Amino acid sequence: MMSAPKDNEIKNSRTSEGQNPRLSVDAVPAAARRIAPFIHRTPIIESHLLNAWLGHEIIFKVEGLQKVGAFKIRGALNALLAAKEENKLPKEIIAFSSGNHAQAVALAAKLLGIKATIIMPKFVSKVKQQATRRYGANIILTDTRQETEALAAEKQQQGMWLLHPSDNDRVIAGQGTACLEALQDGVNPNAIFATCGGGGLLSGTYLAAQALAPKAKVFGGEPKMGNDAAESYRTGKIVTLPDTPMTIADGARTLHISERTFAYLQKLAGFYEIPERDIIYWTQWLSHLLKVSVEPTSAVAMAAAFEWLKTQKNKQRVLVILSGGNVDADTQRQIWEKDYLGQIPAL
Amino acid sequence: MMSAPKDNEIKNSRTSEGQNPRLSVDAVPAAARRIAPFIHRTPIIESHLLNAWLGHEIIFKVEGLQKVGAFKIRGALNALLAAKEENKLPKEIIAFSSGNHAQAVALAAKLLGIKATIIMPKFVSKVKQQATRRYGANIILTDTRQETEALAAEKQQQGMWLLHPSDNDRVIAGQGTACLEALQDGVNPNAIFATCGGGGLLSGTYLAAQALAPKAKVFGGEPKMGNDAAESYRTGKIVTLPDTPMTIADGARTLHISERTFAYLQKLAGFYEIPERDIIYWTQWLSHLLKVSVEPTSAVAMAAAFEWLKTQKNKQRVLVILSGGNVDADTQRQIWEKDYLGQIPAL
Repeated sequence: MMSAPKDNEIKNSRTSEGQNPRLSVDAVPAAARRIAPFIHRTPIIESHLLNAWLGHEIIFKVEGLQKVGAFKIRGALNALLAAKEENKLPKEIIAFSSGNHAQAVALAAKLLGIKATIIMPKFVSKVKQQATRRYGANIILTDTRQETEALAAEKQQQGMWLLHPSDNDRVIAGQGTACLEALQDGVNPNAIFATCGGGGLLSGTYLAAQALAPKAKVFGGEPKMGNDAAESYRTGKIVTLPDTPMTIADGARTLHISERTFAYLQKLAGFYEIPERDIIYWTQWLSHLLKVSVEPTSAVAMAAAFEWLKTQKNKQRVLVILSGGNVDADTQRQIWEKDYLGQIPAL
Repeated sequence: MMSAPKDNEIKNSRTSEGQNPRLSVDAVPAAARRIAPFIHRTPIIESHLLNAWLGHEIIFKVEGLQKVGAFKIRGALNALLAAKEENKLPKEIIAFSSGNHAQAVALAAKLLGIKATIIMPKFVSKVKQQATRRYGANIILTDTRQETEALAAEKQQQGMWLLHPSDNDRVIAGQGTACLEALQDGVNPNAIFATCGGGGLLSGTYLAAQALAPKAKVFGGEPKMGNDAAESYRTGKIVTLPDTPMTIADGARTLHISERTFAYLQKLAGFYEIPERDIIYWTQWLSHLLKVSVEPTSAVAMAAAFEWLKTQKNKQRVLVILSGGNVDADTQRQIWEKDYLGQIPAL
């Protein structure tokens, strides 16, 4: 039931095997044109203090200020709008998520005037459930994360339109529009950093860079505690974690990437695996310096940039995609347990 | 040594007795023109979710995204730029502060190319000391807050130019430019809310409203724990607290307002005194909904707006000035100790 990209957005139609990216570089600009009327063009910001301390220029794309507080609305909207263009928009979609994808699908469905059912584990915070319901979505609660995915798969087999958070061409192209906007706005980076969960954001970011900044190196950041993508990159085949990694970067708690995203991730300049302490350190510092809400998953990308900058002798300009700003109270408590603001960042 | 406002900005030159505001409504637009090239025009933002929950329109002016992370740069710059216009700019200024005024004076002095010495108690966080030093200011540390003020007074008597955080006409006019910008940007509020510390922001806000929205009611919010301004308003004479109130709203820990600010505060539509629990509640919710850094002092203004809205039957449009976004790690820990995000705001 998945709608296919248009011809001019497809580069390689036989790559479900994961060897080569399936989308052409035109797919991201096409997605950007499609979703622009419905989303915020989020700001790019800098901290003069951080730049002075590090001796480099760090430019942040702030997706925490996007609708639903995360980049996720981009991919969801691109998938639904493209289906509508092709007269293939279903009357109802389903999705599974314990995070930002839930709200993104709920809002995208509302904007398109269709029904959405989101399957989520019952431990998801009331605030997130409330926000998802407010966009008119129906919520089905399950006991565990495993049951959530199983029920989604069952519904898909019954013929429902499942909007996967990353294993979807339209979603990948949509997520790439965050990076594309920053490049269109004149950022001219030597390197680009994004966090890897299922790999949708990072794949789209790679594709956007191919379109507008092909000389820029694209790196992934991943929590060391859940380093399946980095391991996959290193070994050349998809590695699956035995259990959900309980990193504070809850957007990166995925067990494995897909063949679809692996095709892009294999082409990256590298991966950095970030310890929990460094994720918390950069969450504190970015909140403090930028005065915008930064979720730990976003801080992973900055921590990766910091590791790369340690290896650089010349002054570099880097673009860091801050994926979102949704932080619940429990996570806030974890973030601020120790005080890292006494330890000023220095290379 | 204090430079006087120009004639067209003065309404009443004999009001050091505090009966009538000293500045005319022209003072704030004049300050805005003066400082505009040096500051950010901060955004005004709304939360559709909050508006839906409360059934009113709440518009926020986000001074956390101002330079130095707070409105304080406005007043400091206006004072120095006006002195420069009159060829009265000293080569060195002093200020005392344990908060945002320190960084504001340091940056303003740097921009004007003069020296600044900031006197602060030694318990001020290293982060704030570091930020103040980075702007090139000299810091003198004292053991206590009382010693800080005493040393500043001593230096002033020796002929130094002391830039007071609120008891200064130029500072008041400068602080009013935050509200003025919001009104210029088309916000047409029925009521305006700002937090009261020394009263500079609130006095300037009142003056800005007089200039562009004279029908709007202007209210002050103050921590109940340090309600000297509300008491002064009620009794008609300035009340001084016996001890520094250790409210989490650290920008409102002042012992008393001045005759100068009292002249404006007496003309307000009212004061709301906010319990600590409500300050923390709104700090959590505004951070969560707006995705920008909100310091507890700012949340006091929203809590006041909420109290007023409880009394309103018709749909209202209110402007809330969010004064700043500087929160140290200790305060963050206090803010997130309990989870209030499970309790959705409702009137």
